[in-house]
Amino acid sequence: MEGGDVSERDDLLVSEEPLEIRLGHGPEHDRREMRLSVTMRTPGNDEELALGFLFTEGIITGKNDVVRVAYCTDVKEEESGNVVRAELHPSIDLDPARWQRNFYTTSSCGVCGKSSIDAVRTLCSVPLGAKGTIEAAVITAMPDRMRGAQTLFKHTGGIHAAGLFSEAGELLLLREDVGRHNAVDKVVGAMLEGAIEPDNRILLVSGRAGFELVQKCLMAGIPRMAAVGAPSSLAVTLARESGLTLIGFLRGERFNVYSGTV
Amino acid sequence: MEGGDVSERDDLLVSEEPLEIRLGHGPEHDRREMRLSVTMRTPGNDEELALGFLFTEGIITGKNDVVRVAYCTDVKEEESGNVVRAELHPSIDLDPARWQRNFYTTSSCGVCGKSSIDAVRTLCSVPLGAKGTIEAAVITAMPDRMRGAQTLFKHTGGIHAAGLFSEAGELLLLREDVGRHNAVDKVVGAMLEGAIEPDNRILLVSGRAGFELVQKCLMAGIPRMAAVGAPSSLAVTLARESGLTLIGFLRGERFNVYSGTV
Repeated sequence: MEGGDVSERDDLLVSEEPLEIRLGHGPEHDRREMRLSVTMRTPGNDEELALGFLFTEGIITGKNDVVRVAYCTDVKEEESGNVVRAELHPSIDLDPARWQRNFYTTSSCGVCGKSSIDAVRTLCSVPLGAKGTIEAAVITAMPDRMRGAQTLFKHTGGIHAAGLFSEAGELLLLREDVGRHNAVDKVVGAMLEGAIEPDNRILLVSGRAGFELVQKCLMAGIPRMAAVGAPSSLAVTLARESGLTLIGFLRGERFNVYSGTV
Repeated sequence: MEGGDVSERDDLLVSEEPLEIRLGHGPEHDRREMRLSVTMRTPGNDEELALGFLFTEGIITGKNDVVRVAYCTDVKEEESGNVVRAELHPSIDLDPARWQRNFYTTSSCGVCGKSSIDAVRTLCSVPLGAKGTIEAAVITAMPDRMRGAQTLFKHTGGIHAAGLFSEAGELLLLREDVGRHNAVDKVVGAMLEGAIEPDNRILLVSGRAGFELVQKCLMAGIPRMAAVGAPSSLAVTLARESGLTLIGFLRGERFNVYSGTV
C-alpha cells in the first residue's frame, strides 16, 4: 500500500460458525432423523435458535411440540457444538407442507410475491393488530436502548441484533448474531422458552426489514416491527395484508410508518 | 401514536420478489430439469444473477458451460419474470458434489468452520494473491464512488450494493439488490458475460464481510475484497488461508486490513 499511516493492532471479530439443525420425529418405536438446515451463525443460544427457527418456519406450533433440543454427541470432534437435534413429540405428525424450508418454492405455491404472501398467511392464521397506542418518544428511544445493551457490537462493531420491547419501551429480550434472521429466531426461541407473550410487543431489528424478517415477526405473533433501515416492497405488502404495524428508517427523532397504526 | 409531528407522504420502496433458478442438464436426448434454488431478490439483471450464482457455487466453471439463461414461459402468469432456466451444455456432467447448495452440509464435509473452509478450497483451486500495491487514497475513495453511482439507493435508502473496481479505483461494475449475496452474484455474472478478468480487481460490498461473501469473492478469483462493515472470524480465516486481501470498516479515511497486502 502507498500513502497513509499504518499501525498494527489486534481486532476482536464476530464469531461465525455453521449450525446444523436436525429434527428427530416419528412414533417412539420408529424414530427418524431429518437434517433440516444449516445456517452460518454466531455460536451461543443455539437451542433458542433451533426452537425459534422451527416456530417461525411453521414446523412447530408451540414449545410443547418439542420434547428437547440438545447438541448432538454422535458427531466428529470438530463439529461438536455445531449440530443440534430437536426432538419432536412422538405424537406430532411431520407435515411435509410445513417443513419445506422455502415453502414458497413448492409448485403448488408458485414463485411470486402474491403466492409468497399466501403461503405465510396459510401458516399464520392468527389475526394481528396492535392494540392501544405507543408514544413516539418510546419508539425513538428504542435503538439507543438496544445498542447500549449490545455487548458483542461494542467489542466487534459488526453484528446484527433483534430486540423485543414492551409497549412502554422496556427491552425484554436482546439477541445478537452475525445473521439477521438468526438474531430474530433466537429472540423468538427465547420467547417460547420463557413463555413471553407476543401481545402488544415490538420487535426491533438492526438492519433492514425484508420479507423474511416480517414473515418471522408475523409467525411469532408480534404485532409491531421496527427496523433501523428500509423495508422492501414485499415486506410492506405482507405487513399491510396481515395487520402488522411496520416502522422503517427509525433513526434519531424520526421514523416512517409503512403499515398499521403505532 | 402519541407525541411528535406526523406527516403523510409516498415513499419509494426497494422491490423484492422471489426468483427461482432452474437448471436444464443432461445429454440432448435426455434433458432433465432441476430446481436449484429460490432467492428473494430485487428484479433485474436476473440472467447475471443466475450465471453468477452457478459460478460462485461451483456448479459451472465458466460461461461456456451454460448455453443460455432465459425466463421460463411455462409458468403461471403471476410467476412470469420470477423463474429463470439455465441450460447447461449437453456435454457437462452435473456432479452432485458441486451443486449441493450448502455444500458444507454433506456428511463428508462436516459442519465446522474448518470443513467449510476445506470445501471452498476444494472448489476454488486457483491460488489468489493480489499483485502490486494500491494507494490508500484509492481505497478510501471507493465507498463514495459506489454510493454516488447507486441509483436505487438514492431513491430508496435501503439496498445492498457490490462494486468491482480496478486497481486504479475505477468503478467497472455496480449492482444493487435487496440481498447482499445477490448483488455479488450479479457482479460476478456480469464479469462472466462481459469477459472481465478478475485479476488485480477489488470487490467492494456495502455491508459486512461474512463467510459466504468472501467465499463468492474467492470463487470469482477476485484477489481483494473490501467491506464497509466488519468481517466475521470465519471470513478472516478463509481469506488468510486463501491469499485474499480482506479490508473491513472502510469508512472515511480509515480502514482495517485483516488479511494479505493492499
